[in-house]
Amino acid sequence: MKLILIIELLGVISFAFSGAVSAMQKRLDVFGVLIITFITAVGGGTIRDVLIGSFPVEWILDLNLIITILATYIIALFFHHYLHAYSKIIFWMDTIGLTVFTLVAITKGLQFHLHPIVCIALGTVTGCFGGIMRDVLLNEIPYVFRKDIYASASIAGGIIYFISAWITSNHNVSSFIAGGAIILIRVGAKFLNWRLPLIYTKDNPEE
Amino acid sequence: MKLILIIELLGVISFAFSGAVSAMQKRLDVFGVLIITFITAVGGGTIRDVLIGSFPVEWILDLNLIITILATYIIALFFHHYLHAYSKIIFWMDTIGLTVFTLVAITKGLQFHLHPIVCIALGTVTGCFGGIMRDVLLNEIPYVFRKDIYASASIAGGIIYFISAWITSNHNVSSFIAGGAIILIRVGAKFLNWRLPLIYTKDNPEE
Amino acid sequence: MKLILIIELLGVISFAFSGAVSAMQKRLDVFGVLIITFITAVGGGTIRDVLIGSFPVEWILDLNLIITILATYIIALFFHHYLHAYSKIIFWMDTIGLTVFTLVAITKGLQFHLHPIVCIALGTVTGCFGGIMRDVLLNEIPYVFRKDIYASASIAGGIIYFISAWITSNHNVSSFIAGGAIILIRVGAKFLNWRLPLIYTKDNPEE
Repeated sequence: MKLILIIELLGVISFAFSGAVSAMQKRLDVFGVLIITFITAVGGGTIRDVLIGSFPVEWILDLNLIITILATYIIALFFHHYLHAYSKIIFWMDTIGLTVFTLVAITKGLQFHLHPIVCIALGTVTGCFGGIMRDVLLNEIPYVFRKDIYASASIAGGIIYFISAWITSNHNVSSFIAGGAIILIRVGAKFLNWRLPLIYTKDNPEE
Repeated sequence: MKLILIIELLGVISFAFSGAVSAMQKRLDVFGVLIITFITAVGGGTIRDVLIGSFPVEWILDLNLIITILATYIIALFFHHYLHAYSKIIFWMDTIGLTVFTLVAITKGLQFHLHPIVCIALGTVTGCFGGIMRDVLLNEIPYVFRKDIYASASIAGGIIYFISAWITSNHNVSSFIAGGAIILIRVGAKFLNWRLPLIYTKDNPEE
Repeated sequence: MKLILIIELLGVISFAFSGAVSAMQKRLDVFGVLIITFITAVGGGTIRDVLIGSFPVEWILDLNLIITILATYIIALFFHHYLHAYSKIIFWMDTIGLTVFTLVAITKGLQFHLHPIVCIALGTVTGCFGGIMRDVLLNEIPYVFRKDIYASASIAGGIIYFISAWITSNHNVSSFIAGGAIILIRVGAKFLNWRLPLIYTKDNPEE
């Protein structure tokens, strides 16, 4: 139980930090940065709880979560001089957040007796929506739709979780395998230049 | 009952297809297209269920809906070479989706004993929000606010439904009349160039 | 009780008017303006109710609210010729809306036995999200993140409410003090040019 809480907080910290950095790169004022930090960190989980009907949504009753986000925000503000070094960290932050949020949502979906396909969709929505909200609020086409392999890593991780759970019948083992797979897919996409199959004709080769 | 389910799936297919085509026109990758397809198809119904407090939201418990959306997505991907021909189809897809979602939401509002004015608002929100989310995520001012007569067709349809229900006391008859009215208004707007009254001064005549 | 309802309607009218004017400045058609008016007015309260799990959300059961918004919309349409004079009024409208929505949300949070920090967050979200949705739908970086002191006034008001409630043990007195503080902070920011501390380096001095 304890371990799960720590892992979940790690995901929240990752997304909070990623939100704070994105907002500072857009040069929002300190409270604009606070709001983006907060929404990036709790957005995915809020959508998850709303969709399955778990109220009040998680962060409303979880003071630890709020304090963790505030602490992350203050630390990000303090180190804003190193913003240029953050783009490398952001990749890892987003990857950890995606992995944690996908698995937490699948676990919660199973507790609500949802079908595996629905659990996978829930995992993807939870993993992606914090970042989507962040980008929409900063008036950009969501990162998720543009760069690297992101939503697809979450979907693949969800599928791997259920295959693994079917074979091993063990939630923890399956979670670790699926989590490892998500991280590996993200790393492969980043450093080995994996690409999704192109579906468009060649007449716009620059895209 | 059966007929209603088929009509509702028709609305979902229409919106899913419209989402897939819009995302491909923006050249998102295959999973970006998947997410936009999904959100366009279930976005309106999700907002409807959240507003009236019907949890979990519909698609979470309805595997048929999810499979229908996935199938629509795969078909849209296959025929992406004909994207240029899609703009005509999109008009009809959006019209069918708007009509179906408006009427389903009014029906659901009545089941929750909401006031007719609230039901009409609910119908408009449900009919419009899938498309609004699609456009916001693709970083455009929502289509709904710009072109043709769209939200207004939904509002007019809602009003016609309640007038008709008051006269005929028959839900099905009223639904068909209101649905026909929404389609007619959309067709009239498109092919007879109906316009909403302009409220702005003439000094910007091009708008 | 009566007074509270009047104050709450004042907040709704303010936000509805602010939404209508923003939409007309973007030259949306009459129904586009209607939808933006509506969303700006009820958006914050809807998010508040969803987060704490109070369903159906308030406006769904409150016909007075809907009629008030419709009336504000019609009045705003009528006086659209004076749009150029509205930018001054908008400041006051947004300020009144922010103040009212912040305090109503804190009150509702207390009724749901939420922690003061959560109540303050809830107040800020409720006060800011109508305007955030308005700006996102009009495809702009939310005003909240850019100009004046806005979210910060709401947060400061929330903190002052709880300090005051701790000293006076009186909800009404604390509400008036906190509300006055929010208005004063906004006025000070506007007319005395108060600024939040800059956190960015000087190499982009124009920002």
